[in-house]
Amino acid sequence: MADLFRTTRLVEFHDTDMAGIMHFGSFFHYMESAEHELIRSLGYSVHSVVDGKTLSFPRVSATCQFHSPARSEDLLEIGIGVSRIGEKSVTYEFQITHEDRQVATGSMTCVCCRAEPGESLLSVPIPAELAAGLRKFAC
Amino acid sequence: MADLFRTTRLVEFHDTDMAGIMHFGSFFHYMESAEHELIRSLGYSVHSVVDGKTLSFPRVSATCQFHSPARSEDLLEIGIGVSRIGEKSVTYEFQITHEDRQVATGSMTCVCCRAEPGESLLSVPIPAELAAGLRKFAC
Amino acid sequence: MADLFRTTRLVEFHDTDMAGIMHFGSFFHYMESAEHELIRSLGYSVHSVVDGKTLSFPRVSATCQFHSPARSEDLLEIGIGVSRIGEKSVTYEFQITHEDRQVATGSMTCVCCRAEPGESLLSVPIPAELAAGLRKFAC
Amino acid sequence: MADLFRTTRLVEFHDTDMAGIMHFGSFFHYMESAEHELIRSLGYSVHSVVDGKTLSFPRVSATCQFHSPARSEDLLEIGIGVSRIGEKSVTYEFQITHEDRQVATGSMTCVCCRAEPGESLLSVPIPAELAAGLRKFAC
Repeated sequence: MADLFRTTRLVEFHDTDMAGIMHFGSFFHYMESAEHELIRSLGYSVHSVVDGKTLSFPRVSATCQFHSPARSEDLLEIGIGVSRIGEKSVTYEFQITHEDRQVATGSMTCVCCRAEPGESLLSVPIPAELAAGLRKFAC
Repeated sequence: MADLFRTTRLVEFHDTDMAGIMHFGSFFHYMESAEHELIRSLGYSVHSVVDGKTLSFPRVSATCQFHSPARSEDLLEIGIGVSRIGEKSVTYEFQITHEDRQVATGSMTCVCCRAEPGESLLSVPIPAELAAGLRKFAC
Repeated sequence: MADLFRTTRLVEFHDTDMAGIMHFGSFFHYMESAEHELIRSLGYSVHSVVDGKTLSFPRVSATCQFHSPARSEDLLEIGIGVSRIGEKSVTYEFQITHEDRQVATGSMTCVCCRAEPGESLLSVPIPAELAAGLRKFAC
Repeated sequence: MADLFRTTRLVEFHDTDMAGIMHFGSFFHYMESAEHELIRSLGYSVHSVVDGKTLSFPRVSATCQFHSPARSEDLLEIGIGVSRIGEKSVTYEFQITHEDRQVATGSMTCVCCRAEPGESLLSVPIPAELAAGLRKFAC
């Protein structure tokens, strides 16, 4: 098992709600932005032009379990692993902690698609170099 | 099996993203707001004072599968059922469609908590009348 | 002076923040969605194809003054007037109240643009029929 | 005239909209989070306990002019100055650029308030040390 890709994220005030904690929906934003940072670290973008084609990674599934609250200005540690990578799709696992306290765990499955303006999304193989980079974070 | 609670929601422009479709994270907002409408229909509020205590329903888990895209100004139909209700927690199932096309399905598990300002959340039994109302939507 | 276009909006839980009130940023979402409802009432869409061209209305300016707090599940009344309409741009004024209490006032100036995928935005005249409809709400 | 406080922010995918650019409402989130970073740099927090009292800085006004689009993964430079500081309120000016291109300018006026749970907001003087720190960014 490889190491996780690791990043951090400060909880922003606008992501809190009247219960005084980070709103559950914002965890999906933070997971997605962390995933995009992983993809950038591999030289790609979540919505990029490759060989003249626009590639995008729409999600087909997202889950999150909320173990303990995150609060404004908490510095969250986010770890990402790749639990499954197929020809056209990839599943990420997320571990979100704050000072060694487990905050949330989640997963997202994304499909590699051609996304040309005005056309329907068409699933296509993940570029080989990107797939190889993602496999380094297999978990 | 009982009927689902049903409501509708127009997709808002600010909930779309550069892929031209509703962003996946906004489905969690729409599911939550539909759940709150269900709770209001039973005479309660998702964050309400009952017998002098503030009750809130933080989520411990949320999942969503995205079957087909929703676009700006689509009128989504949202159906909610209760798949499990325990003493202190409830699990909702969501079906989101647009003109008979399946758009998304999801679920959320929420725990009934006392939420007094400045104190930790404390799980407590769901008020009996609210629990009885929720059971009408068992699925 | 004509009547305002009027709509309502329930404050959603995810739009509140840890101060216990609706986050100021969400007022801009609510104003925009109310504007879109006004445009739909005139038979147009904020992002629509007219004569084979995609029209969009990006904002060049937005302001809001916050007079008193809005809270979760408050039913806000939103009134919209058109304070200025030029060949290619329109300025809206917003009045947001809750049970006769002034909550917020704001304004937004939008430019009518051709928005073809992959091209820069190009300002163009507002369609005559839409402009005539908007003038009915001059304030 | 003093130097601006400076920070950066990468445009996140979920902040874009179907026009392919960063949604105008998200600029208010980015401005607020940059302001909070300024306040942290002075040893305070936007929602903090000082001498046993909870201080918060609700906004009474926010404006933004949008000069050119920001796109996903653009690294925005954000500069903040203090154009006015009174006993109980402060007005910030924001300059947002991308690689020397002007993207947006804005301002926000915030009032220093006591925010005790369950009580109305009460405006109070800005702590002297914080006010002195803010004056270093007078513009």
